[in-house]
Amino acid sequence: MAPVSPGSNLAMFSVLQASGDFEIFLDRLPMPTPADTEVLVKILAAPVNPSDTLLMFESADPGKAEAFVRGDLPALRAKVAAEALPSLEGRIGDALPVGNEASGRVIEAGSAPEAQALLGKKVAVVGGAMYAGYRCLPAGACLALPDDVDVRDGASSFVNPMTAMGFLETARREGHRAIVHTAAASNLGLMLNRLCVADGIPLVNIVRSKEQADLLRREGATYALNSSDPDFGDQLADAIAETGSTIIFDAIAGGSLGGRVLSAMELNASRKMAEYSRYGSETLKQLYIYGRLDTSPIQLTHDYGFRWSVAGWLLTHFLASATGDLVAKMRARVASELTTTFASGYSHEITLEQALDPDVVAAYVARRTGEKYLITPHPAELGGRA
Amino acid sequence: MAPVSPGSNLAMFSVLQASGDFEIFLDRLPMPTPADTEVLVKILAAPVNPSDTLLMFESADPGKAEAFVRGDLPALRAKVAAEALPSLEGRIGDALPVGNEASGRVIEAGSAPEAQALLGKKVAVVGGAMYAGYRCLPAGACLALPDDVDVRDGASSFVNPMTAMGFLETARREGHRAIVHTAAASNLGLMLNRLCVADGIPLVNIVRSKEQADLLRREGATYALNSSDPDFGDQLADAIAETGSTIIFDAIAGGSLGGRVLSAMELNASRKMAEYSRYGSETLKQLYIYGRLDTSPIQLTHDYGFRWSVAGWLLTHFLASATGDLVAKMRARVASELTTTFASGYSHEITLEQALDPDVVAAYVARRTGEKYLITPHPAELGGRA
Repeated sequence: MAPVSPGSNLAMFSVLQASGDFEIFLDRLPMPTPADTEVLVKILAAPVNPSDTLLMFESADPGKAEAFVRGDLPALRAKVAAEALPSLEGRIGDALPVGNEASGRVIEAGSAPEAQALLGKKVAVVGGAMYAGYRCLPAGACLALPDDVDVRDGASSFVNPMTAMGFLETARREGHRAIVHTAAASNLGLMLNRLCVADGIPLVNIVRSKEQADLLRREGATYALNSSDPDFGDQLADAIAETGSTIIFDAIAGGSLGGRVLSAMELNASRKMAEYSRYGSETLKQLYIYGRLDTSPIQLTHDYGFRWSVAGWLLTHFLASATGDLVAKMRARVASELTTTFASGYSHEITLEQALDPDVVAAYVARRTGEKYLITPHPAELGGRA
Repeated sequence: MAPVSPGSNLAMFSVLQASGDFEIFLDRLPMPTPADTEVLVKILAAPVNPSDTLLMFESADPGKAEAFVRGDLPALRAKVAAEALPSLEGRIGDALPVGNEASGRVIEAGSAPEAQALLGKKVAVVGGAMYAGYRCLPAGACLALPDDVDVRDGASSFVNPMTAMGFLETARREGHRAIVHTAAASNLGLMLNRLCVADGIPLVNIVRSKEQADLLRREGATYALNSSDPDFGDQLADAIAETGSTIIFDAIAGGSLGGRVLSAMELNASRKMAEYSRYGSETLKQLYIYGRLDTSPIQLTHDYGFRWSVAGWLLTHFLASATGDLVAKMRARVASELTTTFASGYSHEITLEQALDPDVVAAYVARRTGEKYLITPHPAELGGRA
């Protein structure tokens, strides 16, 4: 492979061909030039989030992706199932840039004072097209980082922190006093746990292994249930009874876990009723599905009564429903607690080229506990961990 | 079996024993005496609705119910599955009276003018404990029927009419412009279809047979889709595209039909988007589940984007959320359109004793198309069809 020339910008794209093949590839673009109010950010660190791999592969199986060379750069090809094609019609032929968020350093700035003020600074950025060597952005879209912060710590300053706080705000405004979270040992889950500990919100963490439960308990979790335990049902019933939780944020989707928690919530609520009702309790039980770790069908049974709701939850929708003041408050909290409450850990650092290596892809889409990938387009400039 | 003595009141109850046996039985109670503002109604007709059989049997299988004699009156016993018992704890040992709604004649009245005004009148009533020979009720809870109305036509004046209008109001206030209804050839479905035709609301009826589709089309339905047709998927996509429907009221629950309609709605919405989004359309798709004709798990897939919601819908909850003015307007419309928009048909008239005959039970819980049961505690006084 030829090295990238100094004046070009390597960037990752995903395109769906009419044949049903996804092609995820790197391309060399001209180096962008910032407008007056813009800055040019040299991207140093960008996390691999589920929302990124969703854009790259949609429902195609990344485990079956085949490597090929496009121009002189690495690329991948993965087939989407024929029945999924109609819902993807809208993106056939469009090469979509990948990468939701990142951090880096401002190396060029437009003439406007707010742009000039950022020149040379480390910044955290969000807005798509971040799996690239460089990205032009409005100065107002950058969160300036203190100089002594490792730029890695700014890479996940938006999606996970805002999602974790979004869960809390959603629960608060809908009147729930305690939360259940599944797949709770993720970077997001650890943030949510720290937030709930800090704010005194009871949280029931559900994970799949003893190691994950231990990790959460070491971080102060009161409830860290292992769904593989033979007495998980009893543990769940007890945790629901003790916390009075009535809302679930679920990253798994497929299968019956979310519904099982709804059943436990209804059982707890119906035990507190003065009088039996054939229609179940008057307590609203809410299951929000924000991820798709299991793509098999969601299974719901019939023992929740009639006061229940299952719905999709998306950060973009939450932010659109929040006031500007609230969002500003949330952003300020992220900035001030970036290395504590909102700290992220990365097990692997990979280049843009490595991010398209089939073995590496198989590893990062597996989302194994404790494994989290960080794309570092310019590894030499990142240095060792600060 | 001994005949009922003139001074006693035969009434149906359902009790769950700690053993997990449901016992549905008749009992002789003392004849009730109306208080000042009350009237005594001789019950002449009471429909068998799903909400009634739910109270009688919950999740026990009525097809396996065994007849026995309690005192000298017929009774049934049906076992509930052990795993369903915890959620039914609250009703163990309580004999619950059965029968949501009915019609009859006021044969005695308290001294208050509003009670006296009803003496001798035909009335439609709601409030439980209607599977009985007689029922005492506040005068204000009675809907007076014109003398020339067959009392059978007043029997279903509450649950189905208010539910059909509740669907329309729910759709209106949540901003949906067209409705999908499943199991649409029921008495409720026919009412909803007449309401939508009258009010100009596009309605997509989904049924299971050609006969049911034909029935709805004869009543003016534009869309009556047979889910058994090999090209049902295409018919559904076309109907959703033509109506722009974004809300489903589903009586079936179990299986994948509701989810299939959500998929069709999302596909229609995503085709209208100017730009592709990996998170799906911005159109909220709402599936309300109000019945449980299929008690297998509800199956939801992952092609609805993130703007979707599946929730329970219950008439009681809707009424609690509606203004008094709206409810009064709805009741007035029922009264004035009882034999047109809100007409109900009954294929079988049975006595209270017959309602506990295992063969009859098997027939009415089967809810076959065109079959609807009416309990007539005093058949001799009902006369032929007016």
